[in-house]
Amino acid sequence: MTLGEVAAQTGGWVAPEAASQEISGLASLDDANPGDLAFFANPKYLKALRKSRATAVLVPHGFGEKISPVRIWVDDPGVCFARLQPAFIPPAIEFSPGVHPSAVVSPEAAIGEGVFIGPFVVVEPGAKIGARSIIAAHSYIGHGVQIGEECRIYPNVTIYERCTLANRVFIHSGVVIGADGFGYEFRDGAHQKIPQTGIVQIEDDVEIGANSTVDRARFGRTWIRRGTKIDNLAQIAHNVTIGENSILCAQVGISGSTRIGNFVTLAGKAGINGHIEIGDGVLIGAMSGVTKSVAPKDIFFGAPAVPVKDYMRNFALMKNLQKLFDRVKKLEADQASRD
Amino acid sequence: MTLGEVAAQTGGWVAPEAASQEISGLASLDDANPGDLAFFANPKYLKALRKSRATAVLVPHGFGEKISPVRIWVDDPGVCFARLQPAFIPPAIEFSPGVHPSAVVSPEAAIGEGVFIGPFVVVEPGAKIGARSIIAAHSYIGHGVQIGEECRIYPNVTIYERCTLANRVFIHSGVVIGADGFGYEFRDGAHQKIPQTGIVQIEDDVEIGANSTVDRARFGRTWIRRGTKIDNLAQIAHNVTIGENSILCAQVGISGSTRIGNFVTLAGKAGINGHIEIGDGVLIGAMSGVTKSVAPKDIFFGAPAVPVKDYMRNFALMKNLQKLFDRVKKLEADQASRD
Amino acid sequence: MTLGEVAAQTGGWVAPEAASQEISGLASLDDANPGDLAFFANPKYLKALRKSRATAVLVPHGFGEKISPVRIWVDDPGVCFARLQPAFIPPAIEFSPGVHPSAVVSPEAAIGEGVFIGPFVVVEPGAKIGARSIIAAHSYIGHGVQIGEECRIYPNVTIYERCTLANRVFIHSGVVIGADGFGYEFRDGAHQKIPQTGIVQIEDDVEIGANSTVDRARFGRTWIRRGTKIDNLAQIAHNVTIGENSILCAQVGISGSTRIGNFVTLAGKAGINGHIEIGDGVLIGAMSGVTKSVAPKDIFFGAPAVPVKDYMRNFALMKNLQKLFDRVKKLEADQASRD
Repeated sequence: MTLGEVAAQTGGWVAPEAASQEISGLASLDDANPGDLAFFANPKYLKALRKSRATAVLVPHGFGEKISPVRIWVDDPGVCFARLQPAFIPPAIEFSPGVHPSAVVSPEAAIGEGVFIGPFVVVEPGAKIGARSIIAAHSYIGHGVQIGEECRIYPNVTIYERCTLANRVFIHSGVVIGADGFGYEFRDGAHQKIPQTGIVQIEDDVEIGANSTVDRARFGRTWIRRGTKIDNLAQIAHNVTIGENSILCAQVGISGSTRIGNFVTLAGKAGINGHIEIGDGVLIGAMSGVTKSVAPKDIFFGAPAVPVKDYMRNFALMKNLQKLFDRVKKLEADQASRD
Repeated sequence: MTLGEVAAQTGGWVAPEAASQEISGLASLDDANPGDLAFFANPKYLKALRKSRATAVLVPHGFGEKISPVRIWVDDPGVCFARLQPAFIPPAIEFSPGVHPSAVVSPEAAIGEGVFIGPFVVVEPGAKIGARSIIAAHSYIGHGVQIGEECRIYPNVTIYERCTLANRVFIHSGVVIGADGFGYEFRDGAHQKIPQTGIVQIEDDVEIGANSTVDRARFGRTWIRRGTKIDNLAQIAHNVTIGENSILCAQVGISGSTRIGNFVTLAGKAGINGHIEIGDGVLIGAMSGVTKSVAPKDIFFGAPAVPVKDYMRNFALMKNLQKLFDRVKKLEADQASRD
Repeated sequence: MTLGEVAAQTGGWVAPEAASQEISGLASLDDANPGDLAFFANPKYLKALRKSRATAVLVPHGFGEKISPVRIWVDDPGVCFARLQPAFIPPAIEFSPGVHPSAVVSPEAAIGEGVFIGPFVVVEPGAKIGARSIIAAHSYIGHGVQIGEECRIYPNVTIYERCTLANRVFIHSGVVIGADGFGYEFRDGAHQKIPQTGIVQIEDDVEIGANSTVDRARFGRTWIRRGTKIDNLAQIAHNVTIGENSILCAQVGISGSTRIGNFVTLAGKAGINGHIEIGDGVLIGAMSGVTKSVAPKDIFFGAPAVPVKDYMRNFALMKNLQKLFDRVKKLEADQASRD
């Protein structure tokens, strides 16, 4: 699309000499590369605007600063940007209801209304798929697995036997739900496997990112409560409970039997010890290693993790540590000169 | 099952007013949620008992403390608990021997007695599957791969060509065995791939958790010796050797050509440098980064990892560092007041 | 192969009493185990030679030191070693062009000359596979995905809709390209999903290791530029740009909208914050956590990461910290004795 066309479609104005330039995509100011159109609606993004690599930016009428991208003046940059999206974003892929002829669906499985089951899917006996759910290609739905309504299981997902997903659960490719918890007993000179006979239970509106793993419980359940969102490559061990509306960033790891509260945020690569409790509303910083229970609303950083206040203080002390050595050296010299 | 029924089946006693309450699962004191039955057999778990969320607990006759779960008095809580398990734990899934008609098994592959090969499995020419092994749905067994007896390959596993697994090896879903080691040579302005022509060799009784990766060797083999257990999302690089009966927790990473001894424990998210040796019986703490070889039986913590004694000392010193700054300030003030 | 045969094939000499010993593989001095043959061509590997577990080593004529492996004297150890490789390394697996009859390839997909499509592959409408590319078993190629020439997609790979791969891109098993970026907006008491409508664009000669994940952009693209190599279990978030010829080691994680330059090295398990820039030629140490932008050519270590010089200084200060406490104690004692 040319900048002239952008201006026409948004009722805006662009300098005639720039009107023939082309854009091929939309992006935020920050993310834009040459060829992208971005928008600037809020003065707090002025710094991002000045650094933006966008070819052109929608700016509000009256915006006078000379910037590196071409300016297209419009009435409401955010609204105009949203209006342009359909031209650049193809419609979402539709999966029409039906079972692909290649799928192996047990006659003892129950498939709801309007379900899509893709090529090479396996649905084992006793499994139940709720209405309007999508089970994409190559996914494996084990014996007795319960999947609710309007769930979306992306390609190449594995769900071991008897695990349950409620409604509107999204599971991205490569995720493994319900593999055995990591439990052994050392006996007769070898690590003997402790049977992992529990399940994984996932409540409404949970989303789990690509290649994450959630192990089944020894007894009972590993439990992810409603509204919690988990990023890619995260590890949830056996018998962990994660509360409602929590956020687990990529590569997080939670050891066995730990309880995570509601509205908890675990930033990227955080590691949480087993058999502890993380209270509601806690924030754990990226790459932190939490060894003990954390009270509600606390903020912990570092490995081992400490309250953010202590973490910041230690950081400041470390910064001045060389000076402390110098000060002690001077004290010693002063004292020596006195003797 | 009602608590009355639990009491009846275990020859125990429960207060009549609680007999109609229902339990739906079994759990440890620690892991129990409302609806679960737990058991208390050993005084050292008294603290866990007092905090338990279980609906009811099997306790020994004579146990008099008032606790929040309902008490069911029985002769031997551990034995009674084990006796109840069959009622709550469905029997393990049986995979009857046979090759699913959808599987693509090369006529040049050798399939042993009593093997199960699931839907959409691919077994390439020259592969060999030992007696009574299970190759679950969607797994890929590459050219010339050797799998021993009574192995269990869960759904969606990939084993690249020529790798070997001995007997009773369990590989969970999403694991990739034998992908190319990460080796390049910088030449002519680009990273040129170094062919990775070795294999992965896995000995008896090894178990590997979901979505872990074990790369093939440049020459020779990446080698996992018997009885070693590996958790989820671990990374074993090319030419690594892991000894017997070692334990690798989730998200551990081991760089190329490193040798890990027997009975080593690598706790969660530990990272081990390349080309080093970790002696027999070593323990590496969670999230530690090991840069140099570690002598047998040593315990290392931290990133970079140091002997646990040094780690603890540093931790204590850091705790008192603010006070040290204060003490130096006071010394300076005293000295100034003297001048 | 016996050592006598090795000597014969390389025009070398071995002591007659050792000639009947067998080797079964080749390895580097470092990686060799009993049964392996290694070679010693460069004096800088003398230490590795002395510690080598190899059964035998090719050494240059005139090498006189007594070592534990059997010596086989040859003209040029490196050249002779390379000449022996074909006897030990089976030829690479050939995938003859063609579409396996079990594959589900949309008639609306475009398949180039000489392409191999393996069993149970799914190619959705609008996808395009360039000449001589290999799409191995169980891989899923989404709607409108563009794959260039001579690419190699290993088994069990998932590529979501509209992502693009240029030429000679290698994607190992379990990789997920184009899953949704991790973006939510908190509204009406819940985390609402922000649609991720962009793509992943991968340029020529990129290789991505097993079970890594590259998320699609919110708008625009997550972009991996030519020649970059990524190891296993790495996480690349939405809208990240990675420049040319960079190296990302295993278990690295990069948060959203960050830009990584050309010839950057991110060592194992490094974590990079979102919305920052890592300049060309930067080296980030293993397990480091980068919180702020890093200027070109800088070397950063630690979590939080600091310039390597500061990191080393802090490390040295920590080593002497106990002594500093002792020195302060002595100063205090001296002062007390003076009063």
